[in-house]
Amino acid sequence: MVPDKRPHTPHVVVLGAGFGGLNAIRALRNAPVEITVVDQRNHHLFQPLLYQVATSVLSPGDIAYPIRAILKKQSNARVLLGRAEAVDLPARQVRLADGEALSYDYLVIATGASHAYFGHDEWERWAPGLKTLEDALEIRRRILLAFEHAEREPDAARRAAWLTFVVVGGGPTGVELAGAIAEIARDVMVHDFRHIDPRESRVLLVEAAPHLLTAFPPDLSAYSAGALKRMGVEVLTGTMVTCVDARGVELRSPGPAGELTQQVRIDADTVLWAAGVAASSLARTLAVELDRVGRVPVSPELTVAGHPEVFVIGDLAHLEWNGKPLPGVAPVAIQQGRHVAANIRRALAGRPYSAFHYFDKGSLAAIGKLKAVGFRHRAHLRGLFAWLVWAVVHIMYLVGFRNRIAVALQWSWSFLTEQRAARLITGNIDQMRQPSEEVIARR
Amino acid sequence: MVPDKRPHTPHVVVLGAGFGGLNAIRALRNAPVEITVVDQRNHHLFQPLLYQVATSVLSPGDIAYPIRAILKKQSNARVLLGRAEAVDLPARQVRLADGEALSYDYLVIATGASHAYFGHDEWERWAPGLKTLEDALEIRRRILLAFEHAEREPDAARRAAWLTFVVVGGGPTGVELAGAIAEIARDVMVHDFRHIDPRESRVLLVEAAPHLLTAFPPDLSAYSAGALKRMGVEVLTGTMVTCVDARGVELRSPGPAGELTQQVRIDADTVLWAAGVAASSLARTLAVELDRVGRVPVSPELTVAGHPEVFVIGDLAHLEWNGKPLPGVAPVAIQQGRHVAANIRRALAGRPYSAFHYFDKGSLAAIGKLKAVGFRHRAHLRGLFAWLVWAVVHIMYLVGFRNRIAVALQWSWSFLTEQRAARLITGNIDQMRQPSEEVIARR
Repeated sequence: MVPDKRPHTPHVVVLGAGFGGLNAIRALRNAPVEITVVDQRNHHLFQPLLYQVATSVLSPGDIAYPIRAILKKQSNARVLLGRAEAVDLPARQVRLADGEALSYDYLVIATGASHAYFGHDEWERWAPGLKTLEDALEIRRRILLAFEHAEREPDAARRAAWLTFVVVGGGPTGVELAGAIAEIARDVMVHDFRHIDPRESRVLLVEAAPHLLTAFPPDLSAYSAGALKRMGVEVLTGTMVTCVDARGVELRSPGPAGELTQQVRIDADTVLWAAGVAASSLARTLAVELDRVGRVPVSPELTVAGHPEVFVIGDLAHLEWNGKPLPGVAPVAIQQGRHVAANIRRALAGRPYSAFHYFDKGSLAAIGKLKAVGFRHRAHLRGLFAWLVWAVVHIMYLVGFRNRIAVALQWSWSFLTEQRAARLITGNIDQMRQPSEEVIARR
Repeated sequence: MVPDKRPHTPHVVVLGAGFGGLNAIRALRNAPVEITVVDQRNHHLFQPLLYQVATSVLSPGDIAYPIRAILKKQSNARVLLGRAEAVDLPARQVRLADGEALSYDYLVIATGASHAYFGHDEWERWAPGLKTLEDALEIRRRILLAFEHAEREPDAARRAAWLTFVVVGGGPTGVELAGAIAEIARDVMVHDFRHIDPRESRVLLVEAAPHLLTAFPPDLSAYSAGALKRMGVEVLTGTMVTCVDARGVELRSPGPAGELTQQVRIDADTVLWAAGVAASSLARTLAVELDRVGRVPVSPELTVAGHPEVFVIGDLAHLEWNGKPLPGVAPVAIQQGRHVAANIRRALAGRPYSAFHYFDKGSLAAIGKLKAVGFRHRAHLRGLFAWLVWAVVHIMYLVGFRNRIAVALQWSWSFLTEQRAARLITGNIDQMRQPSEEVIARR
């Protein structure tokens, strides 16, 4: 199917156009290769701001950009909308879901990760995770519908369950979601209802570890927990989720003596999952040993053992750095994508691969309006200044000038008006009702 | 369920928060009534720009605004997210789909219209219409996916079918859709593919009447047809659609002697419906005689025969004006909404209703980038000036300052860059494939 204009040009197949894949492709801009990128979406998604789509601040178009438009001028790259189903390492082929097979000289696997439920996949129905635009729109629908149901619910206990939001997982996504939901309830919705007071909503943030944001220094974790509490979020650290069902969650929290024995039931119609991560299932077709969460162990050169022509990068790769696996964050994927491109160029020039070196730029997490935490080496930031850094960094890394301007304007407008630009419930009304009917039927 | 703060306050129930319903409610702002508005969406939708969501120019959030946010400060109005299923005129009650019954003193029915297939409901599957945000997103998905499928299709005839777009109906929506699709193919997508040239796309606009825009003066119809042809659209007037199926459409066009005998088959994977309109099915529960398209005949005071407490307005009402029924356009609905509010105020003051007088503000239709037609009484506008009037009028009538600014910025950006801000395919990839597999299976 590929018209071979230059029959001896090496063919680089890139699976996934996230941060890793896209940076590999762009860094091969002028290289003497033919690139084929396969993605099951037509857009590159800026995942760090996905929680703002889920909480009605931004529209999908603000954080997504068509892959074809990004690569419009890169004539050595072509884009296939499709899903890679399996990699045949010995045959050097990728099989797509529609049956097409792509042969490669170099393969870059950058298909990322999705959420995991620690062996409880049945929880997903009640507690959606946040990885794609579809996820974000589903979460937005659930949050907005919960207030609508509460407004029409005559029973006080049921009303309280509709106004209870449980976020599972106290990493950056969980912190950002919980803070944003608290803001919607307290600032945005406050005068919009006649029977309920949205300020009576409960937002619970549940984290199994003793602190929020475990990857952050303790003083910033403590600051975040305090800031969330002042915003009305109930922060439950050291608390395990033992069950998620149609009615809510069961939590096991520390008893009076600190032992994990107290079992609590929380009635909640909206439960959101920001806890586990599982690597893309494509990894399982490689016939190599994977780590505990399904990631592919890679060499310091980012290749798969025994296959120097196959690179794995980003959330899908397991690489130890200073004694710990590198985290699944955008800067790692971006740097690895660029490094893979450099290694392919070295190989084409007859030189050996070089080892990847991670340059740690630090971490940032937004807590709410004009409030964030961040650190870089020994510098710790918090509050407004951290938020400004967070905002500038996030806008800088967005793809497309239009999206940068759009996001900056949306934020300014949201802060000035306490409104949300994308407060839309889409989908058929009968489907809308379904969750509530299901809930009622199971009681 | 309604807490009766003022037990003798008349209860006004408004069904539908479109142009008609919303204007009725806002004009009752300070009236001594309790208002309940029921809508199956949480947002008011600016339908005149819906075709721009379908063609990736605008995001859903740009043309929709939460009904609650609009009525936030109107303390005599409450909003119910729900679907009115039936009206019991003798009992003065509205029954909602979830079983709740609402009693009213005054009822305003403003539930509008959806598309109709002239007795061929099976065509809807292959030729979606454009009335809701969901419709617009489905059409956007089909248009964008068609190019993706074409890029991967090895067979030339199949590829041509993927690149053929048929728009049925030559009214303003059909003209606007056809023009916008031609622009995507010729300007936006032009350098984005490696195997196809999007400029080879065919866009057909099919209209049964002898001219496009039949409600417009003949010189403007002719100008529109000429402008569309210059943009590459094939304008087929005097042409009937006799069949829509998985493979495309069958058309019956005038033969050499002008008779309607020539049968043509067009292979097209994307068919869009902008032809028939059917009034909301709620009208059928009223037990009054309806007109040919299901609209409710109303008195000059906009009430239902024998029920002076029940008003019907907008696309759902049939009222003769200068010998013709009033058209289903926003200005009619807006003026009727305000008139109903005035009549309710008159009744509360013990005065009789007054008859509705329509003030015809003229009509506008956009053809493409900086090109439109419009007329008001004897003044005819075309080209850039008509487009400027069109743009100003549409921005003025948008709800919400934020949306006005957002739409103005999006348009400027689209014109300057030839990009589209919302070029996103959402939905599961397996669902994405389905249409194509269905198409293949049926061949």
